Amino acid sequence: MWQHHALDSMDQITLTAVRGIPLIRPGDDLTGIMLAMLKHNGIALRSGDVLAFTSKIVSKAEGRFVKLAEVIPTARAHWVAAQCHKDPRLVQVILDESESVSRVRPGLLIVRHRLGFVCANAGVDCSNVSADNPAAETVLLLPADPDASAGYLRQQIEDAERVHIGVVIVDSHGRPHRMGAVGVAVGAAGVPALQDWRGKPDLFGHPLASTKVGLADEIASAASLLFGQAAEGLPVVLVRGVPFELHEGCAGELVRPRELDLFQ
Amino acid sequence: MWQHHALDSMDQITLTAVRGIPLIRPGDDLTGIMLAMLKHNGIALRSGDVLAFTSKIVSKAEGRFVKLAEVIPTARAHWVAAQCHKDPRLVQVILDESESVSRVRPGLLIVRHRLGFVCANAGVDCSNVSADNPAAETVLLLPADPDASAGYLRQQIEDAERVHIGVVIVDSHGRPHRMGAVGVAVGAAGVPALQDWRGKPDLFGHPLASTKVGLADEIASAASLLFGQAAEGLPVVLVRGVPFELHEGCAGELVRPRELDLFQ
Repeated sequence: MWQHHALDSMDQITLTAVRGIPLIRPGDDLTGIMLAMLKHNGIALRSGDVLAFTSKIVSKAEGRFVKLAEVIPTARAHWVAAQCHKDPRLVQVILDESESVSRVRPGLLIVRHRLGFVCANAGVDCSNVSADNPAAETVLLLPADPDASAGYLRQQIEDAERVHIGVVIVDSHGRPHRMGAVGVAVGAAGVPALQDWRGKPDLFGHPLASTKVGLADEIASAASLLFGQAAEGLPVVLVRGVPFELHEGCAGELVRPRELDLFQ
Repeated sequence: MWQHHALDSMDQITLTAVRGIPLIRPGDDLTGIMLAMLKHNGIALRSGDVLAFTSKIVSKAEGRFVKLAEVIPTARAHWVAAQCHKDPRLVQVILDESESVSRVRPGLLIVRHRLGFVCANAGVDCSNVSADNPAAETVLLLPADPDASAGYLRQQIEDAERVHIGVVIVDSHGRPHRMGAVGVAVGAAGVPALQDWRGKPDLFGHPLASTKVGLADEIASAASLLFGQAAEGLPVVLVRGVPFELHEGCAGELVRPRELDLFQ
């Protein structure tokens, strides 16, 4: 059972990794498995809870694998591959997931993903992807539509548990200006991904001029502290106590439109 | 007392806002006030805990106020102010805190802070800063050396409580490519700000190629979920259960050197 604390619950957030989730294969019932493990851990979902999933586990359930042996790189992929010193077949997979190339350097390929966010390798993952045959050179794409995936997971969980929850799908992105990757939301449902506090008075009654906050990204970073370590295999984190009302929202809100991006 | 869970404590992180901290004034004993409020809330610190402070409360304790009436803008400040439509005296304060100007647009001034991080207005804060006289046009700078501030807070707390803890000082930064500000670490002590997991095997035994993680930034974002709302006035958050060993570290590790920043 969930503990009640002496402290006001509005002032406390608890992040709990859902233990015991096995390696997920294409077609697995991710929601059913996750709910079974929650029950196994003695946790009952409540309205207001947010579930954070690694993008990897969602992609695996959706079968977003690509076998490099089946990829025929174009001339453009060969050209980009020569600049970043990567396998031209992998580069082709990355380009297929991308709207445009942002930066290329030896060892580095940063693109604008077709969903708008700027990240290395279009989120294509070359690690931890093939339990059956590590030699098969299989890579894993992000979910085709992570906001839709989040919405589907949310609907399934809400229908099964009769609670109102939020879902965030988390990938790890490097950043301009700062070292180290951090968890960001690539998909979201039922959470205000971008919270706008403009106009809300500050402590002394002045209206705040600019206070858009990337709440879903902050949730994603928080959850990443628990599923961060690859060898641990903790791909779902329950976030309880977020101090704001859940309502509709999607990770698409967090993508800065080109015309507002001064660092393209 | 800390609860023992059915769950392994390595799988759970608890974020608790320290309630009851009053408005802080220059020269206040921030450590003493915070420790008194922790005790008042029935919380005993433990080794491994991390305390996250808003940069604002640390700056206030350090008296980092500047009265705009006492600032005489240079010609350069007037020139930049004309481009960003800001008060030339405020621009002078920002330039004094900056190494260089990164982007200027109407309403926007992004600089490389003298400590290396790229952010709007050099972190100079025009809200919530003057309880005594809101009309005095007083602004608040970041701490002069936030890593040193974090180290000082850590030392004071460790000496008083005889525990080994980490301290993170958090500001809220906007980001290239993504909408919404998120909490980032501008100061840190006793936490591995940038964790390097390169060489660690993944689930299938492959060494991970690139897994530097901005742990202190993820902690900062997590804590920001609780102190995010300006009117709430919750400037210190206890982070318990971070699943990695505390050791020396500073927020300076998170500053991407110019030569590695492809989005200058």
